[in-house]
Amino acid sequence: MSPSSTGRLTVVGLGPGNLAQITPEALAAVDEAEDFFGYIPYLDRLSLRPDQRRHASDNREEISRAEAALTLAAAGGKVCVVSGGDPGVFAMAAAVCEAIENGPAEWRGIDLSVVPGVTAMLAVAARAGAPLGHDFCAISLSDNLKPWSLIEKRLVAAAEAGFVMAFYNPVSKARPHQLATAFDVLRAHLPGSVPVIFGRAAGRAHERMRVVPLAEAQSDMADMSTCIIVGSVETRIIQREGKPSLVYSPRFSKRES
Amino acid sequence: MSPSSTGRLTVVGLGPGNLAQITPEALAAVDEAEDFFGYIPYLDRLSLRPDQRRHASDNREEISRAEAALTLAAAGGKVCVVSGGDPGVFAMAAAVCEAIENGPAEWRGIDLSVVPGVTAMLAVAARAGAPLGHDFCAISLSDNLKPWSLIEKRLVAAAEAGFVMAFYNPVSKARPHQLATAFDVLRAHLPGSVPVIFGRAAGRAHERMRVVPLAEAQSDMADMSTCIIVGSVETRIIQREGKPSLVYSPRFSKRES
Repeated sequence: MSPSSTGRLTVVGLGPGNLAQITPEALAAVDEAEDFFGYIPYLDRLSLRPDQRRHASDNREEISRAEAALTLAAAGGKVCVVSGGDPGVFAMAAAVCEAIENGPAEWRGIDLSVVPGVTAMLAVAARAGAPLGHDFCAISLSDNLKPWSLIEKRLVAAAEAGFVMAFYNPVSKARPHQLATAFDVLRAHLPGSVPVIFGRAAGRAHERMRVVPLAEAQSDMADMSTCIIVGSVETRIIQREGKPSLVYSPRFSKRES
Repeated sequence: MSPSSTGRLTVVGLGPGNLAQITPEALAAVDEAEDFFGYIPYLDRLSLRPDQRRHASDNREEISRAEAALTLAAAGGKVCVVSGGDPGVFAMAAAVCEAIENGPAEWRGIDLSVVPGVTAMLAVAARAGAPLGHDFCAISLSDNLKPWSLIEKRLVAAAEAGFVMAFYNPVSKARPHQLATAFDVLRAHLPGSVPVIFGRAAGRAHERMRVVPLAEAQSDMADMSTCIIVGSVETRIIQREGKPSLVYSPRFSKRES
């Protein structure tokens, strides 16, 4: 066996941040690995043993992080790349695949596995009721990786086809104005009464949940850790005395195309 | 305190079927409940104590199941409604909200919580690589609850806007032909080379994963327990010697709108 055939790389999803939402499968993968690559706050969630090594990196360094992890795995390492949420949703699994496709042939021989997790929109939806109960889409609002015109096209297509939408990466210091533009685009295609959910740290001690009508949605209601869910025309709000309202999208639709 | 204020209803997601993919939060919710409502195969996954009661029902009885669970919770019960996957994605959380909205006022006073889980498309994506690494949508292909014309409209909108698609409820005995129609619709709007992933029991002992180009996708490759992921024009396949190919959607897009 060559060293490359003994190396292993596991891309693990740690869920939305509440430790009780990490799967046993993810914890077992962490237990078996020796070297950990990831964005600092995700690595900080792990309780590593003294023999397990941290290789922390900044948020924007996905490809170089993936390459470093693959290099170590190809040399025989037991390597774990950690993501928040689910690693397959706007996270490290795609970056690792990109690096494999563009990297040396031996990287294709690495024993690669991806461990799924609870992605942010599911945690936010659970705290709100069931806003994703009908057809929905997930869109990253970051235009670091695609043209803004394409994002606008997808917002309009989703609004017109009646998809509920979940937004990941809604704002950053480098992109303070795009979320406001996105809301303006949607206001031109959806009624102002459509509910918009801003969910931050859903299911955690410092959770912040807010529901406003689209007409009142503003970009300063979100930061880079917020997941936003925009309802469809059919999404409903149930008022409850002394409890937060429930937001849900009925399973049925009477709407004709 | 009235009896209704002491009742509790928790809608719990058990994940895609692999026991190691159930979160500790979900297991804790199961531990605390006394009465369990759900579709028989989901209830069968639980190891209940002798003092915990099963109220099993058939797959199509979501609303009557939700009403029975709410009635018991309003009478002071500690009730759990179980879903496979995530309860908020084409599952029981929306049915419970529908029942609350249309039911007696006291149901709004029930202490309701939803516990998220790993939904099927995330488990299938993890086994395939990272097909959901770019903007994507989730569509239920069942027209029990919405007109087929609306489903076709959404398929076309998603294809034209470049969303990867995940299909839930792709076929049933009562709907054997719709998946074939869906593939035909997509073939008119996407290249035949776009990869289609059929994932059944992903991450479990009897897992069946299959990847075919859209040109060759057929409805008899799926049953009602299959989750299907249809790539976008930009989704890529990495061939690996002696290992399954990786399917992934790059995080970036150079596509103009």
